[in-house]
Formats: sequence, C-alpha cells, structure tokens
Amino acid sequence: MWSILTKHILKHKVHCGFVTALLNGQKSRNLPVRCPLLWRRWQHTIKAVQEPPMCGPSAEIQHVEAMDTERFIRIFWKDGSQSLYPFVWLRDNCQCPRCFLQSAKARKFAIEDLNVNTGVKNVILSNTRQISVLWPDEHISEFEADWLKKRCFSKESRAEMQEELFLPECQYWGSDLQIPVMSYEKVLSSDESALKWITTLKKVGIVLLDGAPVAQGELITLGKRIGFMRLTFYGYTWQVQDKKDANNVAYTSEKLSLHTDYPALQYPPGVQFLHCLKQAEVGGESEVVDGFHVCNQLKEHDPEAFHILSSVLVDFTDTGVDYCDFALQSKHSIIELDDNGQVLRINFNNATRDSVFDTPIKQVQPFYAALKKLVSLMNEPTNVFCYRMKPGHIVTFDNWRILHGRRSYQSDEHVSRHLEGSYLDWDVVLSRMRSLAQSLRAPK
Amino acid sequence: MWSILTKHILKHKVHCGFVTALLNGQKSRNLPVRCPLLWRRWQHTIKAVQEPPMCGPSAEIQHVEAMDTERFIRIFWKDGSQSLYPFVWLRDNCQCPRCFLQSAKARKFAIEDLNVNTGVKNVILSNTRQISVLWPDEHISEFEADWLKKRCFSKESRAEMQEELFLPECQYWGSDLQIPVMSYEKVLSSDESALKWITTLKKVGIVLLDGAPVAQGELITLGKRIGFMRLTFYGYTWQVQDKKDANNVAYTSEKLSLHTDYPALQYPPGVQFLHCLKQAEVGGESEVVDGFHVCNQLKEHDPEAFHILSSVLVDFTDTGVDYCDFALQSKHSIIELDDNGQVLRINFNNATRDSVFDTPIKQVQPFYAALKKLVSLMNEPTNVFCYRMKPGHIVTFDNWRILHGRRSYQSDEHVSRHLEGSYLDWDVVLSRMRSLAQSLRAPK
Repeated sequence: MWSILTKHILKHKVHCGFVTALLNGQKSRNLPVRCPLLWRRWQHTIKAVQEPPMCGPSAEIQHVEAMDTERFIRIFWKDGSQSLYPFVWLRDNCQCPRCFLQSAKARKFAIEDLNVNTGVKNVILSNTRQISVLWPDEHISEFEADWLKKRCFSKESRAEMQEELFLPECQYWGSDLQIPVMSYEKVLSSDESALKWITTLKKVGIVLLDGAPVAQGELITLGKRIGFMRLTFYGYTWQVQDKKDANNVAYTSEKLSLHTDYPALQYPPGVQFLHCLKQAEVGGESEVVDGFHVCNQLKEHDPEAFHILSSVLVDFTDTGVDYCDFALQSKHSIIELDDNGQVLRINFNNATRDSVFDTPIKQVQPFYAALKKLVSLMNEPTNVFCYRMKPGHIVTFDNWRILHGRRSYQSDEHVSRHLEGSYLDWDVVLSRMRSLAQSLRAPK
Repeated sequence: MWSILTKHILKHKVHCGFVTALLNGQKSRNLPVRCPLLWRRWQHTIKAVQEPPMCGPSAEIQHVEAMDTERFIRIFWKDGSQSLYPFVWLRDNCQCPRCFLQSAKARKFAIEDLNVNTGVKNVILSNTRQISVLWPDEHISEFEADWLKKRCFSKESRAEMQEELFLPECQYWGSDLQIPVMSYEKVLSSDESALKWITTLKKVGIVLLDGAPVAQGELITLGKRIGFMRLTFYGYTWQVQDKKDANNVAYTSEKLSLHTDYPALQYPPGVQFLHCLKQAEVGGESEVVDGFHVCNQLKEHDPEAFHILSSVLVDFTDTGVDYCDFALQSKHSIIELDDNGQVLRINFNNATRDSVFDTPIKQVQPFYAALKKLVSLMNEPTNVFCYRMKPGHIVTFDNWRILHGRRSYQSDEHVSRHLEGSYLDWDVVLSRMRSLAQSLRAPK
C-alpha cells in the first residue's frame, strides 16, 4: 500500500501540498490566532487540491547495477543515458513508512541511524519504473524511476531542477523597459494569469496591474491571492501620503531618490506592492531602475567600487512609532552577493543609512566615492524608467532588485496623492508560483 | 529651534522612537489591516514615550581643527583623547532641517548632492559641547559633542557602539547549563524583568519562563510584550501534539532528533516560544544543545568537516496545507557564517532536508561524513541539556543557535501532550531590547 502511495506522491514533488490535503481529507487545524482579513483561504487552493496530479512522461530503466568500490548505484535508462546515485544518499532518502512520513513528506530516518559508509547487499529492477535496494541490515528501499531521474546528480539535471524550483532567469532592462501590464481582475480570477504575473515579477522584476478597485485595503485581496503579507513595524499595509510629523521620508511631498525599502530590517521584504488611490495633479511620477543591471555595469566599469560596495558593511537604522514603537538597527553591504558571487540583493536607502558607520576611518572616503559612482550609474537616463501611476494601478516589484523613487509633487491642506503599500517575502510568493504551476500542469 | 531639538534628539539615539512619539503628540496612523489579537499596543510603550530621555555624562571639547590634506576634522576632547571625522562623512550627516528630517530621524540629503571630495571653509567651537562647520557653499552644519563622541571612528568606540546596538556577547554552555528561569508574570509587568529576559535570551540563547496561565493563545500576550509575532504557513501560533495525518514530524509522539526550526524558509525564525499546556505522563522530555558551542568544537577537532558544512548548500523543502497551502524550497549551508567567518546560524532540520541535493556527486559522501560528525558532537552527553517542561512553562530560545529535540512519549486516543509554539524575528526582539534599555535609562 505505502509504495502505491509513494508512487502517487513522489512523481509530483511540488504538488505534495495538494496530496497532503487529499490524504488529510482537506482538513486544516484550527488556529487560535488569525488576522480576519487574511485567514480565509483563496478558493484556488481548494480547487487545486481537488485536481489529481498530472502523469507526465515516465522514465524507464533498462538496467541497474551496484558499483561497490565507488559506492554508487548506476542506472542505465532506456533513453540511453545513465545516472549515478551514492549508496549513502539512497539510504538517507529511503521512502518507506519507517524512514519517511508520507503525510508530512518529511524524513523520519535520523542521521544518528545512518551508516555513511553503508554497502548494498543487492539491487534489483522490480520493473522498468522501480528499483529495490536490499541493505546489509535487510532493510529494503524502493525508488521510482521518475523520482530518481529528477534527482540525477548530473550538472544538467540539477540545473533543470533548480530552474523549476527557483526560476533564476533574470531579464535585465533600462529606460527602454516595456513595463509588463496585466489585468488585476484576471490575476485574481485566472490561475494562468496569476502564474504569469508571478513568473514575470520574478524574471523582469516589475509588473503593473491595472483596473484594481480604488479602495484602501484592496491590497489585502491581492495578498491573499498569494498567501499572506509580511507584517512590519509600519503595519500590514501602509499609507504613502504627505503627513504632518512624518515618521518616514516617504510620507512627505518631496522627491524620493532611488532606493530599496527597509534595509533597516536584517531581512528586507522581497516583494512590494504599491496601490495608487490618488495621484497628484502636478508631479509625483514614479521612477524605477533595474538594480542588478546597474550593479553589473558597475562591476564592469569599476570593479574596485563594486568590491567596496559588496564588502563594506553599512549600518542602517529606523526608529519611531507606528504599528508599535521600534528601534531597528541592521548591517548590510549595499550590494549583497550570494555564495556564487552573484548579486542577491541591493540594500540601499539613503534616508535610513545610519550616521553610525562601523568601518575603519581609512575606508570611509573610498566608500563614499564608490557609492557616488553607483548612484550616478543608477541615475543615468539610459537606466531609469519613468511612469505615472493612475488610480487603480498596483505596481508589484522585486524590492531586492528594483530601486524605486518618486518625483516631488504639489501638496496642499488635503491629501493630494495617496498610495497604499504592502510587503511580501519571496518565500511566500515563490511558494504560490510552485503551487500554481503544479495545479495547472494537472489534467483538467 | 531646530538645533535645540537636535540636541534633544541626538543625545538619545536609541530613544528616538519615543522622541518621535513626543513630536507626534503620541498619535499613530490608523491602519486598515490588523490582527485583532496583535493590534493593541503594549502599555509600556505609552509609558516609555512619556518618559523624558535621560541626560547622561556629556562629552566636552577642548579644541577642534580641520586637517585639510587628510580631509579630517580632529577633535581634542577635554578628557585628553582625540577623534577624527572625515569631511565627507560630516557633510553627509549634517543634522539641519534641510538635510535631516527630524520627525523621521532620517537623512534627506541625497548622495546626488554630496561632493565626496568636499573641503571645509571653516570649523569653530560654538561652545564646549558643539562645533559648527562652514562648507565651501556657505552651508553650515552643527554637531553635538555627545553625538560625535558616540560616532568616533576608533576601533574601541565602534566596538562599544556595536555592543550597545546588537549585544553580540555569547555565553556558551553544555550539559552543565543552569537554565535561566524567570517569572512569566514579572516579564509582563516589569520592564526591568523584560529587559533581563531579552538580554539573557540573546547571551545564553535560552530562558525558561515559569507560571504562565495554562491556556492556548497565551503566547499572543507574550508576543505583544515584544511587538508582534512572525506569521508563517503554520499560522501565528501552532499546536505541537500527536495528530492524525500529521503535516509535520513534530505533530507525532515520536522522538525528535536535535534540529533548528524552519530552514525551509530562506530566513528562518530567529526566536521560538514553546508553551507547555499538557505534558505526557511517560516520556516527552526536552533536549537542547548550544549549536554555536558545538560548531566551535567541530571547527577545532575537524576543520575540514566544518568547512564542508559551512560551504555546501543544502536544499530544504516543506510542502503541505495549514494556514494555507505551501510549497517551500530553500538553500542553506548547515553552518551559516557571517562576513567575519563567525557562525551566524545553524540551518539543520533533518526532516525537511530535501532528497533533492544540488551538489556535485563527488561532494555527497564527504558531506554526509561531515554531517554525521556534527550530529555525533551534538549528541555528546557533555553537550546535551535535558529538562522536562511542565504546564505553565514557556521556553523561549534562539532558533538560530539552539538545537532542540524531544524524546518520544506514550500517546493514546486523547491528546496526551500539548505545546503551543510561535516565532519572532530577532529584528523585532532586539528592537524591544533597545527601547526598553533606553526607557529604563531615562530618569523616573
């Protein structure tokens, strides 16, 4: 029985959430604390779990053998290719109910019980779509061909899986950006449109949604379409308008230089929504820049400046009272790199860059010179895309990649311009992307 | 006028939140979206902002001079010490209303307008507690002695400021841990106790609160004491108990090996609360290990294993349905280092470590051997502290540093053991620490 379930589940990794739901009979635990505007699940979640997973093209195995010296199992596929799997990885990932909790799709088998130098007593081809491994302690593990094929350790297979999981492709742009525009209603009503929205947001970094109701709080609906929003000291959503005693420079009518939001948090929000409720009669145009593209230009034209901005840690601060009182401090390089030396995130908000600067005095002048070069590059007309939001527009963008700014506008006694904003984490947005992709691949 | 305000504010950096509140007349914006159990501010916030900032010992200046060649201003303090400040840094941090928005305590002066090679036309000592700088464009900047002293670029002064802002001190422990125990009621009612709780949590990594009401939802009160909790796919709080079709290995009665929570998130929660509502009659003891301490041991005994675990990226996954459906994927090294090569976070949950492993096959065997060594070290009796939670206990711990586990327990038809859990980010916890420290330093 378990192996049938396994077959069913393991062919559809990303879809497991829905499989769990099927196994769980769609029940979810009562939770004592919920934000009433967030707690109700989006209907497509229910729809998706009712759809059976798709059966894609199945891999078939010609032959399997144990390579005892190298401690690999080699699989010869019917398509002529071969894959190698380390003994220890196979034992670690046994999918039997003693080693793996199907309902949680999580490993039960502990490292404490794993013999990292294990041999294999026997391996057989149960059928063209499954192998069985007999371990020295007589434990048996069964592995599905499709599951193994997706986990092949070849560079190409791994890249393919990472592409599917994280959508790393990045399309750079400058002032020539053709800003992607989608219908707000369609994004809400169509899973295809919602998936297109998120994948474009990930690849291009910005998508403008048009035709949203001009009503404060509408962003909550859009947040629920994804899952939930990120609460910060400015609340679940926040009102960008000219305010007396503004606790943020954005809450004035003055020009906002290009920046990313919230580097005063050690983990700045990944995605930002800005919903235009009222636009100024004069001024208030929006500006955006592809920060990753600009960083690549800096790296090429001034590698030393790039090195300084990606290595010197800068202090950021944000103190005040809003959702509650706050006294935030963080440290980031302006250009944050990942483990492969690729730009992961831009952390630049000149307003909250602290006067406290924890760096040797000799590094101060070179730092400012490098920052000036980056900011000058950002402001190159060829890099800046300018647009004017209208009521009903919701701009959604990658806050780790895109720098955004605003031109000053005329304000008077009344609120002359009003945007409502909110944040989400990329984890939550990409989770929805994977779920939508999986449910759309399922046969209707 | 502005310089008086500046004096008032700048002497009390961390207290600025409350100063803003004073400037704002204690008003805060209405926010359209709030979790009803989270939205009400904790009373001490109001109390704190009503307290005037303390006047600490003031620094006094003997003499000031401009070093035009080095582009530094040198200050001779009355205590005999000296400090240097780069021209460009001083211009960048001018505190006048044109350059700095007092109500937000944020910089208005843009990098676009900064001459990084600026000279100084004149600098004078207005009085022993303030200098005035005249810039080539006739702009004038005034700087307070205390503000300058705190921002001195000497290694010692910078270390002192970082210590105040981030409390980096770490007290390691093993099985000999004298677990810090504090009264839950006192932490709620006394700011001194709340501050002691947070500082101990940061230094030791774990604090047990005793005497909490045995009622589900009580963690919300504790979360409000800090600010707000971190919402995840498991909700604001979650119930650790034996469940049918568990969507998490924690929701069974089986042993849980030592782990950190939620590495399937790219930014795992920094702090975890676990509130005991019911304890099993047999089994269910808790185990904790100081992960940073164990990592130091591994680095000393097996630097190669340490290197592998701090460099090989491991895939984590978590899919299911709870607060809503989710399909999380992340990549972390098991031992995550900061920019200085110090251990920043342990990312280890064997249950959610993915069967997808995006690493060259030759690295697989060495990775498992290294992980086995780390896990063996964790489980050394000298490293494991075991305790038994009782109803009314709330254990609060650093989820980036502490590995926690649970021994198996006997379960039956009814719920035989019940913990309620929740998460917070360190940003929010340290923000509260700074606010409490500042308000307690203020004269009563």
